[in-house]
Amino acid sequence: MNRMETLKKAFDETSYQLSGHGPRNAGVLKQAFQKIDEDTKSDIYGTGSSINDFEDKMASFLGKEKAVFFPSGTMAQQIALRIWCDEKGSAKVAYHPLSHLEIHEEDGLKKLHGIETVLLTDRDSVVQLEDIKSMPGDTACVLLELPQREIGGQLPDFETLAAISEYCRENDIQIHLDGARILETLPFYKKSVKEICSLFDSVYLSMYKGIGGIAGAILAGDDDFIKESKVWKKRHGGDLISLYPYIFTADYYFELRKDKMTDYYEAAKKLASKYNACEGITTLPEVPVSNMFHVHIAKPKEQAADILAEVQQESSIGLTGYVREINDASCYYEVSLGDSYAGVPQDKVELAFELLNGKMKA
Amino acid sequence: MNRMETLKKAFDETSYQLSGHGPRNAGVLKQAFQKIDEDTKSDIYGTGSSINDFEDKMASFLGKEKAVFFPSGTMAQQIALRIWCDEKGSAKVAYHPLSHLEIHEEDGLKKLHGIETVLLTDRDSVVQLEDIKSMPGDTACVLLELPQREIGGQLPDFETLAAISEYCRENDIQIHLDGARILETLPFYKKSVKEICSLFDSVYLSMYKGIGGIAGAILAGDDDFIKESKVWKKRHGGDLISLYPYIFTADYYFELRKDKMTDYYEAAKKLASKYNACEGITTLPEVPVSNMFHVHIAKPKEQAADILAEVQQESSIGLTGYVREINDASCYYEVSLGDSYAGVPQDKVELAFELLNGKMKA
Repeated sequence: MNRMETLKKAFDETSYQLSGHGPRNAGVLKQAFQKIDEDTKSDIYGTGSSINDFEDKMASFLGKEKAVFFPSGTMAQQIALRIWCDEKGSAKVAYHPLSHLEIHEEDGLKKLHGIETVLLTDRDSVVQLEDIKSMPGDTACVLLELPQREIGGQLPDFETLAAISEYCRENDIQIHLDGARILETLPFYKKSVKEICSLFDSVYLSMYKGIGGIAGAILAGDDDFIKESKVWKKRHGGDLISLYPYIFTADYYFELRKDKMTDYYEAAKKLASKYNACEGITTLPEVPVSNMFHVHIAKPKEQAADILAEVQQESSIGLTGYVREINDASCYYEVSLGDSYAGVPQDKVELAFELLNGKMKA
Repeated sequence: MNRMETLKKAFDETSYQLSGHGPRNAGVLKQAFQKIDEDTKSDIYGTGSSINDFEDKMASFLGKEKAVFFPSGTMAQQIALRIWCDEKGSAKVAYHPLSHLEIHEEDGLKKLHGIETVLLTDRDSVVQLEDIKSMPGDTACVLLELPQREIGGQLPDFETLAAISEYCRENDIQIHLDGARILETLPFYKKSVKEICSLFDSVYLSMYKGIGGIAGAILAGDDDFIKESKVWKKRHGGDLISLYPYIFTADYYFELRKDKMTDYYEAAKKLASKYNACEGITTLPEVPVSNMFHVHIAKPKEQAADILAEVQQESSIGLTGYVREINDASCYYEVSLGDSYAGVPQDKVELAFELLNGKMKA
């Protein structure tokens, strides 16, 4: 076993994990289906109350005319951008260089839709109004990801958002929200989800991040946009005969967790401060603005992996199952708070951080 | 309520249905998950034994090197054709004019992949070797759908299939099997699924037709082809974090039904003969070659709907919930046999056909 495998194994064998909502297993589905009656009818190709009721509920929740349930956010967002590009007659969209579409989708947007991308700002920064103002004039659409996951979930302030939205609307540029984790930002923004969504023409929300469903996504916008998105959903092969396994679980965990985002945010701030108290460790951002942050360790990846494996073996507290190299002298991993944290004994957490600090100093 | 809605209502209120495996409801999922342990780990983005074990099992069952689980056949088949087009350097594929890709996918193949289609033969015929021989020389790939659903599930004979396959291989044309319902053809062909699949370079099998799962599809082929299909699966937004709700149900119902295709085929032949004994009714094909056939009624659509509604109300036997117009004087509907038929009391079936024949004569 190499050192990365040892780290993974150490994490998998811990009794408590600080991140997430617990294991991704069949129990997640079974729990959500416990109270679903066997006679409940399946949705059929996007029709039927099993899908349409949830879509209506989410449209209303987000403050949009209509919503549609997609099997994945990848599909939902490519389609949103395609529709806006077709409307404007320009196959050009702008987003952050570390957008999910740019780095995690095998260039689906380019290869399936022939859309050219403009990368706003540099990799380590949050998009600002100046970046939007310097876009090429024929940019059809801007995608903003809130929080910006790949840089620790950083956020522009609300005034910046409002100014970007206003600029886009004045200049006939569509603005799409990659809101996979938008609920997780509400405690920081101190805004309702409707207030945030009103700044955008279309909105995507993931069903398995903060909400913790099995898979799936909601895309919301005006009536014409959603009608068109359903045509593209069929073209992509996403108009499944039955999506109810994802919809019923999404609805169940949405109800269970939608009002717990403040708990996750407060836990993230506490946990980040524990990390920042350790020698050679900092979090990005230093004070989290959502339920997530990145942990940066000023050690080479292999050395950090050894330390983290030992801490986890000795404390039985799960911190991470991996580390990613930044450069020869540092590495990082992501932390995302959910239901699990509240169930972890605090004395064991303290022990884990004492061990971590001690080993970092050694 | 119009006459078509009355027909739908009459069908929905029957005690027994001759087609299918029973209602598509949450019970289908719950039954399959009854014996799945809560601790069973989710697949994660196409990895983990929850997905890979089933893929390996299906590859072996179909006699192919590898297989991949897709959320839909629409996605799986567009991708298969794209890969073969890219390999050949020609964006042209040939298939039957009533192929699913041509009439049910909002032109995804053309709009997402820029692939041009060649329509083989006329709408009412089965593809023959002569049709293949007359294709443009730069056709990259032929897709054959077995059985040809939109014409009642007709089939070419096995010798024709073998000759088409041989011709394609001699002429460097890839050949893909739209085998959504391929298991349903085995009793007629008296061949193993491996023998059929060996004639094709890539194969798609649906998880919710004869097998009766919730949704999902298997795409099988050689190692390089499947590797490439996984890249496109991600591009399409089909590489979901968790597909297990579909995979575990597919596996459960595959085991339950894979050996029952002969029962469905025999039932289809019996039922078709009952229809053909009625005045003004014929089936296409006259003698079914799979579990399915179309019922053609020599009456205007509205009149046929009235008769069918009455028969169903009086017998409580479900024949169909819809009819589709062929022309001013005739209409049709599809029948597809599954588990339900064996549970229907035969005396009630006789009654239904007596009523049907009587009303057709009147």
